[in-house]
Amino acid sequence: MIQIAILGFGVVGSGTAEVLTENKAIIEKKVGQPFDIKYILDLRDFPDSPFGDKVIHDFNIIVNDPEISLVAEMMGGSHPAYDFTKACLEAGKSVVTSNKEVVANFGTELLAIAKAHGASYQFEASVGGGIPIIRPLNQDLSSNNITAVNGILNGTTNYILTKMECEGASFADVLKEAQQKGYAEANPAADVEGLDAARKTVILAAMAFGKRVDPNTIFCEGITHITTKDMEIARELGYAIKLIGHTEIKDGKILCMVSPRLVSFSTPLAGVSDVFNGILVDADMVGQVMVYGPGAGKRPTASAVVADMIDIMEHTPAGINAPVWTDATSEDIMDFGTYACKNLVVLDAPLSAGDTLISAFGATRVCYVQGHLAVITAELPETAIDELMAKVGATYPITTRIRLL
Amino acid sequence: MIQIAILGFGVVGSGTAEVLTENKAIIEKKVGQPFDIKYILDLRDFPDSPFGDKVIHDFNIIVNDPEISLVAEMMGGSHPAYDFTKACLEAGKSVVTSNKEVVANFGTELLAIAKAHGASYQFEASVGGGIPIIRPLNQDLSSNNITAVNGILNGTTNYILTKMECEGASFADVLKEAQQKGYAEANPAADVEGLDAARKTVILAAMAFGKRVDPNTIFCEGITHITTKDMEIARELGYAIKLIGHTEIKDGKILCMVSPRLVSFSTPLAGVSDVFNGILVDADMVGQVMVYGPGAGKRPTASAVVADMIDIMEHTPAGINAPVWTDATSEDIMDFGTYACKNLVVLDAPLSAGDTLISAFGATRVCYVQGHLAVITAELPETAIDELMAKVGATYPITTRIRLL
Repeated sequence: MIQIAILGFGVVGSGTAEVLTENKAIIEKKVGQPFDIKYILDLRDFPDSPFGDKVIHDFNIIVNDPEISLVAEMMGGSHPAYDFTKACLEAGKSVVTSNKEVVANFGTELLAIAKAHGASYQFEASVGGGIPIIRPLNQDLSSNNITAVNGILNGTTNYILTKMECEGASFADVLKEAQQKGYAEANPAADVEGLDAARKTVILAAMAFGKRVDPNTIFCEGITHITTKDMEIARELGYAIKLIGHTEIKDGKILCMVSPRLVSFSTPLAGVSDVFNGILVDADMVGQVMVYGPGAGKRPTASAVVADMIDIMEHTPAGINAPVWTDATSEDIMDFGTYACKNLVVLDAPLSAGDTLISAFGATRVCYVQGHLAVITAELPETAIDELMAKVGATYPITTRIRLL
Repeated sequence: MIQIAILGFGVVGSGTAEVLTENKAIIEKKVGQPFDIKYILDLRDFPDSPFGDKVIHDFNIIVNDPEISLVAEMMGGSHPAYDFTKACLEAGKSVVTSNKEVVANFGTELLAIAKAHGASYQFEASVGGGIPIIRPLNQDLSSNNITAVNGILNGTTNYILTKMECEGASFADVLKEAQQKGYAEANPAADVEGLDAARKTVILAAMAFGKRVDPNTIFCEGITHITTKDMEIARELGYAIKLIGHTEIKDGKILCMVSPRLVSFSTPLAGVSDVFNGILVDADMVGQVMVYGPGAGKRPTASAVVADMIDIMEHTPAGINAPVWTDATSEDIMDFGTYACKNLVVLDAPLSAGDTLISAFGATRVCYVQGHLAVITAELPETAIDELMAKVGATYPITTRIRLL
C-alpha cells in the first residue's frame, strides 16, 4: 500500500484527490499495487468535502510519517512550498508538483536533492497543464538536439488575445470579462505581464538544454499595451498576435524571453485559441513537433500530476531517468542585444515616407493599413532595432513594435 | 558497451544509423554508457555507405550473437520481419520497430513474448512517425480513461487532400504529382485505400483500450472517390475533408474505422496540412490533447526509433512499464451498424425537395451549393443512414456521402 499526502487543497489539489479517487481502478491496475490518500495539508478545514477527514494542518506529521512515500505539492507560491518540498525530498519521499514558481526558481537544487536521497521530483503539470511536454522533452525527443521551443504557455492571456482578435474588444474590457468568468485573477499581473509564461519558458529551456536560467532576469514583455488596432493591422498582414515564450540555443548560448509575437496564420501555433496552450519544439532530427491542449484547469492539470504519481509508483527512483539541470552562469546566457528577429513597426507616417522606411529598416514589406504605415523589418538584432526606432521615431512617431516569430 | 543490430537498411534503417551516429554524444550521455552498431542486416550490399562494413546477409549471426542486446527492425512487411522479431525477443534481445504492419497484426503476441523473456518491444515510430504518441498514451495520459482517438495518420493522403483543397486539382492529378515527388508509392493502394491508416488506428486503439482489433476486419474507406466538387461543397459548409482513423470505446465495446471525414475548420485537426500528421486524444480527465508533427520521413521516424532505443538502453526491461494487450474477441467489438454520426449527403435534387429531405434525414442543415443539394443529416446509425440513402436515392441520385467528425 502506497500512502500519499497532498499539500494544498485548492483547485489543483482537490482535482488531484478527485482523479486519484475516480480513476483509482485503472491507476492501481497500471501501478500493480493499491494506494491511498492519507493526509491533505491545508490551513483551512473542509467539513463538507468527502476528503475532509484527511485534512491536517501540521506539515511535520507528513514529513515524519515513514508510511508516506509520495507527496503532491499543490500549494503554489515559493514559500513554504519550496521548503516543504525540500524537507520531503530530504526525507526520501518523492514529490510531484504543478508549481511552476518553485520549479523555475529552485528546480536545479530540488532535482539534485531528490537524486541524493533516492527520491524523484516530477513536474509535468508545471508547464502546459494537462498537455504532455516535460516527459516528451525528456524521453520522446531524447535522440535529438533540441534547438528551440516556442509556446503559448498562459491560458489567461491567450483567452484575452483571442477575444480581442475575434470581437474587436479592448484589452481592458476583455480583462474585466475574464476576471468575471474566473479565467483571470483579481490581480492579473503575473499573467498579463508575462511572468507566469517566463517561469514556464525557463522550465522548458532547462528541459531542452539542461541549464536553468533565472526567470527573474529574462526579457519579459506582457500584453497590456496591445491594442485592437495592432490586432487589425496584424490580421491584414496575415498574422495573429500571441504571447510567446521563446527559448533557443545558439553557439552554446541560451536565450529565454517572453513577448507578444506576430504568428503567421499558416503556422499551427496561430490556431491555438482561447484558454488552450500549444508548444512547438524544434529539434535536429524530428524537425518540428507540437503539443496542444488545455493548459490549465482543475482536472487537466490534475491529470498530469497523477501521471507523474503513477510514474513514481510503478518505478523505483533509480528506474526513472530524471533530468539533470545545472544553473546557467553568465557564460551560458545569450546577450539579448544580439538576438535577431523581424519586427512589425507601425508609424504615423505618410505613404510617401515608405521608401525612406524601407531603406532604414531593410524592410521586406511596407503596407498602408488603417491610416498607418506598417513596416516588416529585416531580421535585426535588438540593439540595431532599438537604435533605428529612436532615429526614425524622431521624425515619424512609432505607435507599435511587435516581434515576429 | 551495448551492441546494436539494425534489420533493414532502407529509408528508416539508414536514418536510424545516421541519428545514432550523428547524435552519439548526447545519446551516450543520456544512456550513461557507450553503444555501437555491430551489424546491419540487408539483402543488398552498400559499398559506398559509411556503414557498408557492418552489412551482413545472415540473420542467424545476429540472433546467435550474445553481444547483441538491442535490435532495430526496420524491414517493413509482415515476413520475415515478424519472424525475426520473435526470434530476437525469444533470445532475450529487445526490439524496437517502425513497422506498423507487424505491430498491428502481431503486437499482442510479441509484447507477451518480450515480457516472458525479460526483453522490451517498443514501437513509438509505428504511428505518427516522429510525433510522440505511443509513450504519451502509455504514460502521460495514464491517469485517464481514454474515450476516443482521432488521427490524420497517413501523410500521403493528407498531402493529396491538401493539394486538392488548395489547388482544386483532381485526385488522379495530385496522386501522379505525389508519386513523382516520392510522397506516394508506385502502388499507392495501402495509402489511398486506407489500410496504412487502419493499421495505425488499431495500434492506437490497443494503446488506449488494451485490446488489439484485427486491422483486416475494420471498416476502411479510402479517398479515391473524393472529388474537387466534394471539397468545394465541404468548404462552403465550413469543413475540410481529411482521412481520419477513428477509434472509440462505448459501453466496453471498441470501434476502429478509417474513412474520409468532414472536419470543422474551427477544430485543430483541420489545420493539419500536407504530409503532417495530427492525433487528437479524448480522455476523461484531461479533455482533449493533440500532438502534431512529421508523420513520416527518414529522420523524423528515426528520431522516434532511437528514442525507444534510448529508453531500452537506460532501463532494465523490468523498469519499463510495457503495455499489455489482449486480442479483442467479438464480444469486445462494437457492431459497426450501430455507430452513429452526422453525414454530408449530396444529391441531384431541386431546392424545392429540401423540406422532404430535411424530414427524411432529420437534417439540421440543407444548402443549395454548386448546383447540388447538400444535406447535413442528424446523428444516425450506419444501418439507418444506409436505408435512408437507398430510399431517398431512388428519387434523387446521391453523388456523395461523407461522415462528419
